[in-house]
Amino acid sequence: MVEPGLSRSPTRTELHAWRTFLTAHARVLRNLEAELLAAHRLSLVSYDVLVQLAEAPERRLRMAELADRVLLSRSGVTRLVDRLERAGLVSRQRVAADGRGVIAELTADGLERLRTAASTHLSGITRHFTAHFTPAELHDLADLCTRLAPDP
Amino acid sequence: MVEPGLSRSPTRTELHAWRTFLTAHARVLRNLEAELLAAHRLSLVSYDVLVQLAEAPERRLRMAELADRVLLSRSGVTRLVDRLERAGLVSRQRVAADGRGVIAELTADGLERLRTAASTHLSGITRHFTAHFTPAELHDLADLCTRLAPDP
Repeated sequence: MVEPGLSRSPTRTELHAWRTFLTAHARVLRNLEAELLAAHRLSLVSYDVLVQLAEAPERRLRMAELADRVLLSRSGVTRLVDRLERAGLVSRQRVAADGRGVIAELTADGLERLRTAASTHLSGITRHFTAHFTPAELHDLADLCTRLAPDP
Repeated sequence: MVEPGLSRSPTRTELHAWRTFLTAHARVLRNLEAELLAAHRLSLVSYDVLVQLAEAPERRLRMAELADRVLLSRSGVTRLVDRLERAGLVSRQRVAADGRGVIAELTADGLERLRTAASTHLSGITRHFTAHFTPAELHDLADLCTRLAPDP
């Protein structure tokens, strides 16, 4: 629902805040991706897919659920899973029940690869994200972000 | 430089804050993209490229500069510009001076398309982003985000 009063364009200050939010996200993600690529030749979108599968029950998801859960780009998930399957990190199978759905499953190699990459990625989150804030600031930031996505 | 004390993994609380930040970004961008696609059949990455060109001197940038400036995915900028060129929104030319660089330039059609799409996008920013915050909160959020990208 679009409330008429809210359809106006943002002010200069509001637009600045928006761009700062976008730039911060872009900057941190580029740093994290550069480290993942250098140390593990794994892109951040690939890492994202592997994490979503690893956290799912039985480490498998329907492709549509997977596309919904990834936090980066939803577009291109099919092609990305093609590549991950060729690399042996994910396997796919048609769902017997209805014949239409396709399920992606994390392989043992995929889980191993994710575990190895995780230490790089997690210490990267500390250095490129949390280290910039006091605990109170981090709490505030999370609180503000929750407004934008109330039910993560 | 990696300080040894900062290479640790994030705590549960820190990781929650990180995921909230990622989820908020993903949620807002999906909403903005859905609106742009529905009203103008323009993806958010395309809009991003058109904006960066529109704001550049003479509305043109070297491809490498363009890739650096886009706030969304840097990967695939070349293919994206291919598509925008076929749609007549961007033109490309080799730089005479050194023969190696390629410059992308916003066309008159591209500028027109961007202007039409801008009202949808800008009111989307108001509804999906700034409307969730008081002015003081928006200031705080921008302030916190600036820590992550000090020189935007």
